Order: sequence, then C-alpha cells, then structure tokens
Amino acid sequence: MAACLVVGAGDGVGGAIARAFAAEGLEVCVTRRARNMDQLEELAATIRAKGGKAHPYGVDARSEEEMIALFDRIEAEVGPLEVVVFNIGANVRFDLTETTSRVFHKVWEMACFAGFLTAREAARVMTPRGKGTILFTGATASVRGRQGYSAFAAAKHGLRAVAQSAARELGPQGVHVAHVVVDGAIDGVFARTNIADREERLARDAILKPEDIATNYVWLHKQQRSAWTHELDLRPWSEAW
Amino acid sequence: MAACLVVGAGDGVGGAIARAFAAEGLEVCVTRRARNMDQLEELAATIRAKGGKAHPYGVDARSEEEMIALFDRIEAEVGPLEVVVFNIGANVRFDLTETTSRVFHKVWEMACFAGFLTAREAARVMTPRGKGTILFTGATASVRGRQGYSAFAAAKHGLRAVAQSAARELGPQGVHVAHVVVDGAIDGVFARTNIADREERLARDAILKPEDIATNYVWLHKQQRSAWTHELDLRPWSEAW
Amino acid sequence: MAACLVVGAGDGVGGAIARAFAAEGLEVCVTRRARNMDQLEELAATIRAKGGKAHPYGVDARSEEEMIALFDRIEAEVGPLEVVVFNIGANVRFDLTETTSRVFHKVWEMACFAGFLTAREAARVMTPRGKGTILFTGATASVRGRQGYSAFAAAKHGLRAVAQSAARELGPQGVHVAHVVVDGAIDGVFARTNIADREERLARDAILKPEDIATNYVWLHKQQRSAWTHELDLRPWSEAW
Amino acid sequence: MAACLVVGAGDGVGGAIARAFAAEGLEVCVTRRARNMDQLEELAATIRAKGGKAHPYGVDARSEEEMIALFDRIEAEVGPLEVVVFNIGANVRFDLTETTSRVFHKVWEMACFAGFLTAREAARVMTPRGKGTILFTGATASVRGRQGYSAFAAAKHGLRAVAQSAARELGPQGVHVAHVVVDGAIDGVFARTNIADREERLARDAILKPEDIATNYVWLHKQQRSAWTHELDLRPWSEAW
Repeated sequence: MAACLVVGAGDGVGGAIARAFAAEGLEVCVTRRARNMDQLEELAATIRAKGGKAHPYGVDARSEEEMIALFDRIEAEVGPLEVVVFNIGANVRFDLTETTSRVFHKVWEMACFAGFLTAREAARVMTPRGKGTILFTGATASVRGRQGYSAFAAAKHGLRAVAQSAARELGPQGVHVAHVVVDGAIDGVFARTNIADREERLARDAILKPEDIATNYVWLHKQQRSAWTHELDLRPWSEAW
Repeated sequence: MAACLVVGAGDGVGGAIARAFAAEGLEVCVTRRARNMDQLEELAATIRAKGGKAHPYGVDARSEEEMIALFDRIEAEVGPLEVVVFNIGANVRFDLTETTSRVFHKVWEMACFAGFLTAREAARVMTPRGKGTILFTGATASVRGRQGYSAFAAAKHGLRAVAQSAARELGPQGVHVAHVVVDGAIDGVFARTNIADREERLARDAILKPEDIATNYVWLHKQQRSAWTHELDLRPWSEAW
Repeated sequence: MAACLVVGAGDGVGGAIARAFAAEGLEVCVTRRARNMDQLEELAATIRAKGGKAHPYGVDARSEEEMIALFDRIEAEVGPLEVVVFNIGANVRFDLTETTSRVFHKVWEMACFAGFLTAREAARVMTPRGKGTILFTGATASVRGRQGYSAFAAAKHGLRAVAQSAARELGPQGVHVAHVVVDGAIDGVFARTNIADREERLARDAILKPEDIATNYVWLHKQQRSAWTHELDLRPWSEAW
Repeated sequence: MAACLVVGAGDGVGGAIARAFAAEGLEVCVTRRARNMDQLEELAATIRAKGGKAHPYGVDARSEEEMIALFDRIEAEVGPLEVVVFNIGANVRFDLTETTSRVFHKVWEMACFAGFLTAREAARVMTPRGKGTILFTGATASVRGRQGYSAFAAAKHGLRAVAQSAARELGPQGVHVAHVVVDGAIDGVFARTNIADREERLARDAILKPEDIATNYVWLHKQQRSAWTHELDLRPWSEAW
C-alpha cells in the first residue's frame, strides 16, 4: 500500500495533513520528537478511528542517521513512499543583537537542515521509481525578512531554496516538489492560548484552519503532471496583506 | 442558477475552463470577438452535448460599454455570477525598436485594460453579495521581462498588478481573486502548427494541457476561505525552468 | 557636447536629476507638458545660473510624433544623447469600483506608454553608437499592488516590464538600462502641502530628498560596464518597510 | 581613525573591497582563515604600499568567540567600525542526492552563519553610535534555487534573509544594511584557471571585475541617508540574463 510520510506532525497543520492523506487511502507515517510520542499516538489513534492506517515514529529529524533509517524502515515495512511532507517550524522572535548563536543554529537545524535531509531521502527513494510528491510548509518569513526574524527567516529562506533547487532537479525525473507559503495565523494550540479573538476569528474563517490548509496539500499531490505548481500562498480571505 | 463567465474563450485554455466549470454545474457564459461567433457556438455546443448550459456572447472586451452591458445581461438573464475568469492573451514578440505604438497599445488593451474592466465589473456585482471568485490567466511574462517582450510583458505585468490590487481590496469583502502564472507552452491550435515535437510532448505530458490547467481554476474556486491562494504557477513536470 | 534628456522634469525628482547631470557637464534637455513651460523655464534658468546648459521642451510624452521629433531635434541641435531619464509619475488612488476607464487609460498613457516611447526612441539613437544610459523612475507600486492602486500599479508594473525587457535586449548592445524603485514619500510641492510633519521629517532626513535620489541616477550612469546594476531601491533610513 | 572590516578578504572581491575603502581613508581590517595568513599579509602589503593602513587577522568567522574577540579588538586597537563587509562565499555544486550533510552544514556555516555573527557583532558596536554601514555579498543563488545548488542556495538565501531582517531592524537605528546580488562570473584565481575565454572576456569587460564591484560597495556606504538602497544587482553589460 502506498505510504505518506509527514515529518513534524503535531496537533496542528502536520496532523491535519496526515489525516487528509489517510482519508485519501494512503498509509500514513507521522513523526515527532520521541518525547512527544504520546501526542503522536493520539494522532495515529484518531486516524485509525476513521478507518485509516497510521504509524507513529519518534524521530529527531535533524539526525541524518535517524532519517535514513526512517525512510528505509517505511519503505521496507509500510510501502513505497508516494508523498513526503516536511512540516517542522521553529517560529522564534528575537532582535538581532539578542539572537544567540545557539538559537540561530537550532532554528536552522529544525526548519532548514531537517528539511534538506527529508528532501534528499525522499529523492533517494522516489527518483528510481520516477514518481512521488515532496511538499514543504513555508511561511511569510520564507519570502521576507523582518525585524526580529533573522533566525527564523534565514532558516525558512534556506528551506525555500532547498525546495526550489529540488523542484528544478527532481521535476524532470518525475517527482513533484512544491512549497506552500502559509501567510497568516494558524488555528491550534498556540492560537488557543495566544490569540485573544481566536474564537471570533475562527467563527468567520478569519484564521487559517489546519484542515483547510491540508486540503491544498492533497490537491498539490493530485495535480496532473502536465500542469504542476511549485509554489502557492495560503491566507485567510479577511487578511489585509 | 449560478453563472460563470469566461472572457476570452477560444478553443484552448478558455474553452477548457468553460467546460470544467460547466461540469461543476455552473451555467457558463463565454465570450470572444463577434467575428469568432462560429467557434464560440461550437464551444457552447460541446458543453451542451455533455448536459451543461452555455451562452456564447460576441463581445469586444476592450469596450467599457459592451462589458458593462454583458455583466448586466448575464445577471438579469442567466443568474448571479459566482465565477469570472479573464483569459485574453496577446502574445506577440518584437524587438523594442521594432515595436510600434499601435502594437504596444493594442496588446495592453487586450491583455491588461480588458482585464481591468472585467475585474471592476465583477467586483461591482460580487461585492454586494460578499462572495465570488475572479481568476486571471498570467504567463511567464507576467513576472519577467525579456528581449522582444516589452509590449507583452508590460501588459501582463499590468494585469498582475490589477489582480494583486483587486485581491487586496476585494478579499476582505469576501471575493476571492487569484492569478495563475502559466509558465510554458500550451497545447492547442498554435502548438499544433508551431511546435514540431508537439505529438511526442503531448504523449508524455510535456506540454501544458488546457484541461489540466482548467482543473486548477476549479480548485481555486473551491478553496475554503480560511485558506485562499492568490497566486500559483503551472508548468509541465518536464520543464527545466 | 553630450546630452542628457529628462522626460518629466518638474520641480521635484526630475528637476533634481536634471541639475545633477548638468553639474556633471552634460547639456541637459528637460520636458514637461507645454502648459507648464513657465516652470520648465525656471528650472532651465537655475541650471544656467550655475554654469550649466539647459534646454526646455514643451512636449506631450504620450505623443509618438512629438517624442520622435524631440529625439531627432536634440540629436541634431544639442548633441548625442548619453543619458535618457523617464520620470513621469501619475500617482492616483481610487478603489477598483471607483476607477473609471478614463483614469485607468490616462495613468497608463502617462506612466507606462510614454515610458515605452522614451525607451524605444532612446534605443534608436543609442544602439548604433553602442553606448548610453536609460533610467526609469519606479515606485513601491512598481513591485506591489495594493487596495486603491489598480490603475497606478498596473502602469508602474508595466513600466518596470518595459525597463527589464529593454535591459535584457539593450545591455548586450552596450546600452545600460536601470530601474529605480523609489519607496517612500518624496519631498517637494506635494509634500509641502500634504505631509503634516514634513519639516520635522526633512530635518532628520526622514523623507526622500530629490537631490539625494538624483545622486543615485548619476551613479548608475557612471557604473563601470563590467558591473552594471539593473534595479535598486531607495528609501529613507527611518522607514519601517 | 575610522575602521572598515572585510570578513573574507581573499585575492578577489574581498581584497578589492578592502583596497577601495582604504583608498577612501578608512583603516582596513581584513580576515581570512589563519592558514591563509600569507595571502592576507600580501593584501595588507599592497594596501600599505599605496599609503593605506591595513590589519590582517587570521580568524575563523564561524567561531562566535573569535568573532566577538575580533570586533572588540578592532574597536579597542584600531578605531570605531564605520563599515563592515561580509564577503565569504562557499560556492559548491552537488546534485541533491549527492549532497552530504557535512557539505550542507559547512556551506551554511561559512556563507550564512558567519554572516549572521558578522551582522550581530556589527550591530552591537554600531547601534549605540547610531551609524555605520553593513554590506553583504550575495549571488544569483541568493534569489534563485537551481539544480545542484541546494546547499549553496540554502545558505545564500539564508544570508539574504539575515541582511533583510537586519536592514529593517537597524535602519531606523541609523545603520545602513545592504545586500549586493553579484550575478555572473567574477574575474580572479578561479576564473584564471576555469574560464577558458577569460582573457577575451576581460578585455571587453564581459566578466565582473573585482575593482568594479568594490566601487559599488563604497557607493552604498556614501549614500545620503534620505535615500538608502537595500539591494542592488551587479552583472556585466554583455550578460544575457
């Protein structure tokens, strides 16, 4: 059975993407850090409850060894990977002079380096088959730097460069690579505690809903190959961008 | 019954878009210059043959009067416009010193000014209802100038500016505006006579197929409003861009 | 003696550009609509008062005939054009549904079509000599649409496409084409009556000064040809962009 | 005496930038890895031979400790830093599946992380004085990914994000931050052995000359603060871009 891997599947966008591909009949593999295995098991359970197949993996996506092993294991035990989604964020905000090298390095490791490993390993298993879809979650910071964003924007710009280089390299080999610029606040755990008017915005669709984002990932995977998209933006209708 | 208008519906992309929205159950209104009414009738006939509803209109989209009358007539006789697509191209190529002011003006009138009229009239009927979708067909020349493209790129850049301004203005009023950058050769009448390896490219999806482009227009219309796209690119998988 | 033409030389940026090139020893030709000949004569007088040479021309830059005649006359009577600057703006702001086709057309004629004519005529006289500089004044609206800016952004995007196409076509022929994105409020007649804190901003350089803008046009002209710039942005240090 | 620091001063662009600022009367501090101290001494000698002042420092720009110490030492022993230039490249080319994590990490450390450290330390010493200029050398890969460029483009995109974030944060504090997109082959050691027609291209200025690049860095530093540039591109006149 065809497999879908979502690297960075929390209770927000990554979880919604996993649920959406499971609903399409793919066997879904989801990862988070090992210390969050409980939440990952919960996500897998909700997918199974709806008749889907889900496999949770506690993985440090910044570890080359762990990532190579993850791809090998899925290909051997679950099935050929048809879709791979990289969805790890690391949204921090510090003024430039307050940004420690530790923060700058860590944000890059999580949001860019892990994305590179994901792309490379996906390419390794997909290109011999001449098909597959690799999707990256981007953000406003992927296309624009801003005060307080030197670390996050550097990592997200880097990830976008990986996605664009991969698209140009893998497209002619039959692998579809796309980058989604999610431009705005997303509903979820963070929003529930940090966005004061979250309820009101949610009621009128004025905040990005993970399941509406996820639908677009499925769409990108389903695009006919005579007309592939490499990049699209997503934002709520109400946003004054 | 909800209506869809495609301004510039030839036998290529515009026709495919009309067929795709008709298949979704919208009553489709298609326009071309009056002198091409025969082809327009043919398009309408193919839509009706599949059980759809189609209305051909011979209209000069550069005429403010004709465009105002067109929108009024559709709203009165067909139904409320839910989708309006602007799809007139005017791809010409002349070196800068060979570009006559007549060519520069005409290309702008067709590819930019008519697009502005379309957007404005669509906004006029859609904003009071707080919903609707306006879609623009762009091209590589929408985002990049090039030798020989001063006239075409100027018009397409202008159209993109209209689309972006409209999106920012109409989004918060509930109207979804999107711009599709079609980046590559499209199959059709022109391709049949001008692209030597057209058959071979078509066989392996290495040329944009109008029906695959059209599916994406329908997708944009169906996007949930918590996650709207303003711009996406489309190109064949095989393209070395 | 080498000539410099500034199309659209008011008392603001265009005037400053003319003064700056005159100070570099070029014989400066300046244009405005014929009805503004008084101000144009004043500008010429200030240039002459500093020892420069200046020729005012009342010209409608949207008229192909007048523009061809202008270039011919300068080449015949003044000298070979080394620098041509297109500096006509047409900053208007109307919501999309309030934008008349007359406004949309006129703004395009002034800010885009006249720029095309300028580029083409400059190319006509410069390419046979294999040298020369053509400079365009852009704005924020050249690179971004926005509510209320459909007409202005469409024209400025179009002008940028002309500049970029011209650069790619004329560069290899020895003609340097550059586009300057002036991003912010500029001091001048408009600022004096419309920007409340103009004096205070001027005192701390928090508003673009025409003479500081002009210095950059001279710089672009002087760049060594192994390292030419096509586009740069200009904004006050204080701007939160 | 005012100081200028060039991080990454080889015999190419960095060296030319150092010479150019020395000619402007700044006391120039240049760095390279300690193992290349011989070449750095040579560069310093050529600057001194022309009456300039130059200080070579063997520094690993990826080391936070060494960079902090470097800035402290220059400020204490040489003078207040007026200009800081980050000029380390790391141009490598590997297909995605051939890119080792070691290469990806190293290229990022050199071309992005070291640039972040440079920007942060420059901000630390400049913002209290409310003035200074920080300049970054970019490349085509800063704005576009491409086959074989996942590592290099990721690092250069990241550096550009640092530059843009820094510009938006430090501009209103009086510090000018600019990013130069050098788009094309540059003359130098690499060109001498790798570009077959280098002599011919050099003769007709069809390859970027380090000294012509450097002039633009000096220009950016001299810009009046009412009209600062954040980004400009540089390429040879002959380039078909």
